[in-house]
Amino acid sequence: MTARFYAPEAHATGDEVALPDDESEHLTRVLRLKRGDRIVVFNGRGLAFDATVQAAGKHAAQVLVGAARAAASEARVAITLIQAVLKGDKMDDVVRDAVMIGVAAIQPVVTARCEVTRASVERGRRRERWERIAVSSAKQCGRALVPVILEPEPFDAVVMLVEERQLPDPALMLIEPQAGADAVSLRELGARRPDEASLIVGPEGGWTPREVATGSERCQLVTLGARTIRSDAMALVATAALFAKWGEY
Amino acid sequence: MTARFYAPEAHATGDEVALPDDESEHLTRVLRLKRGDRIVVFNGRGLAFDATVQAAGKHAAQVLVGAARAAASEARVAITLIQAVLKGDKMDDVVRDAVMIGVAAIQPVVTARCEVTRASVERGRRRERWERIAVSSAKQCGRALVPVILEPEPFDAVVMLVEERQLPDPALMLIEPQAGADAVSLRELGARRPDEASLIVGPEGGWTPREVATGSERCQLVTLGARTIRSDAMALVATAALFAKWGEY
Repeated sequence: MTARFYAPEAHATGDEVALPDDESEHLTRVLRLKRGDRIVVFNGRGLAFDATVQAAGKHAAQVLVGAARAAASEARVAITLIQAVLKGDKMDDVVRDAVMIGVAAIQPVVTARCEVTRASVERGRRRERWERIAVSSAKQCGRALVPVILEPEPFDAVVMLVEERQLPDPALMLIEPQAGADAVSLRELGARRPDEASLIVGPEGGWTPREVATGSERCQLVTLGARTIRSDAMALVATAALFAKWGEY
Repeated sequence: MTARFYAPEAHATGDEVALPDDESEHLTRVLRLKRGDRIVVFNGRGLAFDATVQAAGKHAAQVLVGAARAAASEARVAITLIQAVLKGDKMDDVVRDAVMIGVAAIQPVVTARCEVTRASVERGRRRERWERIAVSSAKQCGRALVPVILEPEPFDAVVMLVEERQLPDPALMLIEPQAGADAVSLRELGARRPDEASLIVGPEGGWTPREVATGSERCQLVTLGARTIRSDAMALVATAALFAKWGEY
């Protein structure tokens, strides 16, 4: 398979664009490609092209954008994953998996039981790291669109953003079966496929009763049955289930 | 939450049973429980009980089985995951995740492009390892049933076992969209929920054309859309999608 590279500046056939640093390094040092080699580039906003390496320097690679080509199609429902920030590498895995399965955007959220603060997420430049992981996962799964990683927000702000339709409505908030009486199963959700939706997944320690109460005012509480699913697998399982329900598979 | 232990010999209230070595060590050395402490035990075949520690020795723990109690309910469709043996730890992760989401049994299969042989699987006592992982995952997800890990078989033997109904029919064989013309999406599968089904997932390198041809004679070829899903995530994604389609969620 021809190697794929992220070239955010590629817009049209005939463009001559530089690859970002990480991508240049991958092209030059890892794959040892040279002037004249054929590659594929995608711009992260849905377009992919054949391309030819023009220069493969140590720090910068330059490519000539060729004919447009098909990339893996995007999902019928644009799901924004609103994910509580998990501990350590777990959040990295969730970002990787969510991009792979096909979410449209990721909104990190800091909840009462998250073991990180927004300040520590910012200091650690975690968002920049998640963006790199999103690019890498898009390369591997064949998408031409790199889901945007939004600025982390506290839980109340996220609920407000749903209320103001700045995040997609309907918003489905996943809760443990024992955590609340108003939760429905996916069977009980209407069969109509929305164009977009938010999926809200909590942290390792679950939601506080206050968060469930706040969420229930603006979101649909949903539960995925009796077996406990690890928090770092929940987004993948729930997205797969929603895609199946909405005819994506 | 009360600690849960695997006690395969627990059948009925009043039984006095020894825990297996691993479980005894967990009880005694890790959780430092003592005579009189209350625990929960499950026998791996669907029953769970309250129990009381009678003896917590260094190498063996003995418990008194109390009242029966509810465990996480089993899935409406008993899925046997027929999984090509993946490299290194990846297969461990698949076993862990498959037990968590709720498959009924796991049949490891050695295919042409697996990077292991049946002999090396046997020498490495991999099956015993997967059995321990299955117990550990069942403990965490709240199931009282530990899915059986069947003896690894070559691909042709597995297709024969489906033919002879020793493995569940219908058997859905997941293939890459480009790998074959006869694959359907989940939308195109009949809506009727079977009581049991087999789900066949290939290795990192995919199926050979001959395997696809052989499989297509006895199995339904199925594809999960255009985005490439990592082989170690495929079983989880496909099971979640099938459960959603069949009304489990």
